Amino acid sequence: MKLYDAQAPNPRRARILIAEKGLDIPTEELSIMDGENLTPEYKAKSRFGLIPALELDDGTVLTEVPAICRYLESQYPEPNLMGRDPIEIAQIEMWERYSEMSGSQSVGEYFRNGFAKLDDRGLPGITGIPRIEALIDRGERRIASFYETIEDRLGDSEYLGSDRFTLADITALCAVDFARMVKHGIPDGNKNTERWHAACSQRPSTKA
Amino acid sequence: MKLYDAQAPNPRRARILIAEKGLDIPTEELSIMDGENLTPEYKAKSRFGLIPALELDDGTVLTEVPAICRYLESQYPEPNLMGRDPIEIAQIEMWERYSEMSGSQSVGEYFRNGFAKLDDRGLPGITGIPRIEALIDRGERRIASFYETIEDRLGDSEYLGSDRFTLADITALCAVDFARMVKHGIPDGNKNTERWHAACSQRPSTKA
Repeated sequence: MKLYDAQAPNPRRARILIAEKGLDIPTEELSIMDGENLTPEYKAKSRFGLIPALELDDGTVLTEVPAICRYLESQYPEPNLMGRDPIEIAQIEMWERYSEMSGSQSVGEYFRNGFAKLDDRGLPGITGIPRIEALIDRGERRIASFYETIEDRLGDSEYLGSDRFTLADITALCAVDFARMVKHGIPDGNKNTERWHAACSQRPSTKA
Repeated sequence: MKLYDAQAPNPRRARILIAEKGLDIPTEELSIMDGENLTPEYKAKSRFGLIPALELDDGTVLTEVPAICRYLESQYPEPNLMGRDPIEIAQIEMWERYSEMSGSQSVGEYFRNGFAKLDDRGLPGITGIPRIEALIDRGERRIASFYETIEDRLGDSEYLGSDRFTLADITALCAVDFARMVKHGIPDGNKNTERWHAACSQRPSTKA
């Protein structure tokens, strides 16, 4: 197996899962800034032009983080990160998706639309998408809503998707750390989120 | 069980899967136009304010279409719609996600940002998101890219996620039918997509 990797929040989700499972998968790092994910060579492997991608020994290439993670979970079931029974599996998937769609994607919207180097690349994996000024503000509103929702949830539950650390936390952590990097850290007074963030961040896997 | 339903492309994904499996699940229909998904009562059940949601007999509420579908697939495995082995499962998930993120969401972006009745509701499940004129054009570009990618894929494969009809096709079909409704039908000459669309559309489940 080989992981196509980059310094970005989405590949980090896969790296943390791989580290939690103690796997040693060779990686090839590409530069999103330099558009190395958009070359014909890379798109011949990873059709959507997205990173990460997992190339299997038979040449099959899997993309999309949850699909990659579900494959790895099936091959290396322990520690379990995606649920042990149908209801837990569904709840982890719910919170994982929410953390991507309302967390990572909101921060991405804020960041990409305000960053001149990504002109024409307002969305991942596709060119010809101009930056849109109004999306900087929209991204900020969405980040605020994401923080509010997870603060509320983390008042009821120690972790996001379940009562233990799972892929939902990995994705939310990557979203929050991405937000912190672009000066939208956890809002003051969000004590549940602070507690959860500290607990997640002390896991060695999250250095990935 | 009970399904919270609406006349919209996302709940249709769940309805088609339910019909394929021959299940008879009672539904309660809400109006997205009237904001019935955003009331405190509904959000107490479905925290993200999204439809569909599946309420189980013990009161647990599952949201997010793939999570709902994976739960139903675990309880009613036949006909299989989400994969029979780890690689097929991952490939179906890849194409299902792509069809949502680049298909349904692109059409949604085009539609919501051009539709005065959804002012302040430029994104699902959240208010205070103004419509943005520039997203009408961006949505159109993304729809074009989606059509190009699936046309290419359907030249290699009879169906999107596998060699048979799966959840990936359900999600892509709902995206394409939503696009057709807003005058962005399958581009002329996309013969693979036409063939696939006709094959999917003749299944009785897709009347759902």
